[in-house]
Amino acid sequence: MNKITPRTLKGFRDYLPETMIPRRKLIETAARVYQSYGFSPIDTPALEYLEILTGKGSDETDKQLYRFTDHGGREVGLRFDLTVPLARFVSQHINELGTPFKRFHIATVWRGENTQAGRYREFMQCDFDTIGTWNVSADIESTLVIYDLMRAIGFERFTIHLNNRKVLSGLLEKLDLADKTVPVLRALDKIAKIGYDKVLAEMCETAQATETQAKEVLQLATLQGNNDDILRQLETLLAGSEKGTSGVADLRAILNAATAVGIDEAHLKLNVSIARGLDYYTGTIWETFLGDLPGLGSVCSGGRYDNLTGMFTNQPLPGIGASLGLDRLLAGMEQLGMISGIRTPAPVFIPYFDKERLHDYLKIAAQLRAAGIGVEVYPEAKKLGQQLKYADRKGFAYAVIAGSEELDRGICQLKNLSEQSQQEVLLEDLPALLITL
Amino acid sequence: MNKITPRTLKGFRDYLPETMIPRRKLIETAARVYQSYGFSPIDTPALEYLEILTGKGSDETDKQLYRFTDHGGREVGLRFDLTVPLARFVSQHINELGTPFKRFHIATVWRGENTQAGRYREFMQCDFDTIGTWNVSADIESTLVIYDLMRAIGFERFTIHLNNRKVLSGLLEKLDLADKTVPVLRALDKIAKIGYDKVLAEMCETAQATETQAKEVLQLATLQGNNDDILRQLETLLAGSEKGTSGVADLRAILNAATAVGIDEAHLKLNVSIARGLDYYTGTIWETFLGDLPGLGSVCSGGRYDNLTGMFTNQPLPGIGASLGLDRLLAGMEQLGMISGIRTPAPVFIPYFDKERLHDYLKIAAQLRAAGIGVEVYPEAKKLGQQLKYADRKGFAYAVIAGSEELDRGICQLKNLSEQSQQEVLLEDLPALLITL
Repeated sequence: MNKITPRTLKGFRDYLPETMIPRRKLIETAARVYQSYGFSPIDTPALEYLEILTGKGSDETDKQLYRFTDHGGREVGLRFDLTVPLARFVSQHINELGTPFKRFHIATVWRGENTQAGRYREFMQCDFDTIGTWNVSADIESTLVIYDLMRAIGFERFTIHLNNRKVLSGLLEKLDLADKTVPVLRALDKIAKIGYDKVLAEMCETAQATETQAKEVLQLATLQGNNDDILRQLETLLAGSEKGTSGVADLRAILNAATAVGIDEAHLKLNVSIARGLDYYTGTIWETFLGDLPGLGSVCSGGRYDNLTGMFTNQPLPGIGASLGLDRLLAGMEQLGMISGIRTPAPVFIPYFDKERLHDYLKIAAQLRAAGIGVEVYPEAKKLGQQLKYADRKGFAYAVIAGSEELDRGICQLKNLSEQSQQEVLLEDLPALLITL
Repeated sequence: MNKITPRTLKGFRDYLPETMIPRRKLIETAARVYQSYGFSPIDTPALEYLEILTGKGSDETDKQLYRFTDHGGREVGLRFDLTVPLARFVSQHINELGTPFKRFHIATVWRGENTQAGRYREFMQCDFDTIGTWNVSADIESTLVIYDLMRAIGFERFTIHLNNRKVLSGLLEKLDLADKTVPVLRALDKIAKIGYDKVLAEMCETAQATETQAKEVLQLATLQGNNDDILRQLETLLAGSEKGTSGVADLRAILNAATAVGIDEAHLKLNVSIARGLDYYTGTIWETFLGDLPGLGSVCSGGRYDNLTGMFTNQPLPGIGASLGLDRLLAGMEQLGMISGIRTPAPVFIPYFDKERLHDYLKIAAQLRAAGIGVEVYPEAKKLGQQLKYADRKGFAYAVIAGSEELDRGICQLKNLSEQSQQEVLLEDLPALLITL
């Protein structure tokens, strides 16, 4: 029989244990934080009717869709994000769900885009959203979620950049540039990349702003000082604009609440130059940067949007939420040495040392597991050296070594595999000792 | 703009919180047990080259495959199980993985089959396997994993049915029926459904066995007594067959080890009539039944196979593993009242009672979360009654109610929402008290 070459499709990848273990841990951490705020898990199908996926997508996402005709002649596609499925889900079930509805969704999405460094055609998204309330307390809570997420993952140095789209919209209304919002935003979004002068030029060109108007808009991007200083300058700049003033009030409410629960200003920075791309967001927006790797880009982004479900129903439902960039974060954590390279989820290894004493090894393992300690028993009575080499390769922390003589005396040798140190331990004391290590 | 009807494809479904919460819990329990034995998480792409998926599949699975041509003109398909991807994964990475390789894989698979009651076109599999060892200690360990899984999920009454394919193969060799193994197995597998006489008839007809031969085979299915009695009868029946004797020895080794670690015979029953369908398995096999719902079918099944990777390489790799039937188990747990219907992952609810005191509510919530207690703060300062109705609907266990007066005194009312009882608690004592409840 001809052999088939075992291979994965271009843009797709296998997750081996050393990659999957930290990935799983990150996903579990995110789920734990989301749940600690009352966000419920949900899931939706990977396949949806094509019309649902293409209904609101851009030409860009339409081109990237994995689509086909199924056995029943239906036009279907693989989801390319979790936002369109959320909109469909909420529209379909809102009477059963009620509002406010808080959900998180950690799931795979597919995009047949050109594969570049670090871009895959299959990846996971990790979103949380609160649907059905305009109250700023949801904006506050979501900010706290992002902060807790970053801390729970293990970061000390990070900054959540906070803005509100109503600030800019209010200013543009005041300047009679409201109908130019999209080109102005597009230009402003590039300030970190291309600088003040080029953004100014782009605004005059594509948004037909006068230089005076463009400069007033760009004032926003050049405000100086701490959060309080900037808030005060914004209040002056936007005086008379109802929308702008309301945006500043939301920002103040979020910053005040963050201070009240003890979040340091180093972690939450008002930054009126972030715009998060196009015209989806309508209020609060966030981007989150690692202090040690600012060039990595935002690792947690999102914001408030007015009308999630417009494609499906006339009942307008607002929402607010953000998405943790799992792959980007894992790449950053690897660069920062936060990923161990361990290939086993269990810390303890028991060599199958004496062929006749398997039951003893199984009993020791069962006792450790009952104490919540993961343990692997080697499945073959090979030479001890070979078994310990296996343990080293996998990255176990400890080996529990016992031959007939030790077992008869009720003891074992507990070996610390990274330090290569060893101590004699009574078997009955082993679970309690390992828990403290 | 025309509205699009929000709907899911036939055979696909959304998971709402009350369904997803127990589902997630079950998946986490399985992952925890697998990891406690040193099984590592892995993942593989949902999409594979079609030739990989069709290489070993039956006509049945081929017909059910979701397949299409991708943007690059490749013939691709959605995985229909986790075994074919495991074979591909192991063949591709074995030098890096080394043996023994122990992995678990909990992931979605797709089959475009006819939808019947309880059958979906998208479902999750939950497999664990040990690759690369013929040693019976892997068979022993896998049996312990199944036992621990069932206990960890919360079952007291269940029976793991244990058999070994070498017992029947040995007997068939002895009876010169070895070339009829597949039809004999097919017939024997139906004994619980169609009874002794019909199986006897089918064996004579489709396997061309004589009645004497068929009756000897059926002796296997009618052995009586406890595990030890049956082992002794098997030893006599198979005397002279090397293969059969080796199968009985494996069974004895597993049963002895299970007894040694304290597993009651009520939970592990030698049952030589189970065959697990076709000719994939070659040694140990298991099926697991709930004591209170035997008619549900097996909720955890699997066995030992000789050659996982034959489709891809000439290097033969044996494996042993089993699969937890998540959907069947959840259906069973629902029937048994083991599923609560709760729609929130957080036990504590804080009504937004006094509009001016949001910061206080946020601080209480933060303190509870720091103690590991999930808590949701209602996002709008609505009437208390409305908020408590929301809390009831969601199924929160406790509400922490505090107005200005209580907050100023440093206290709150802790309300048990199911008992409708209430007590006054000092805010500083709240985390410690809730942990004990």
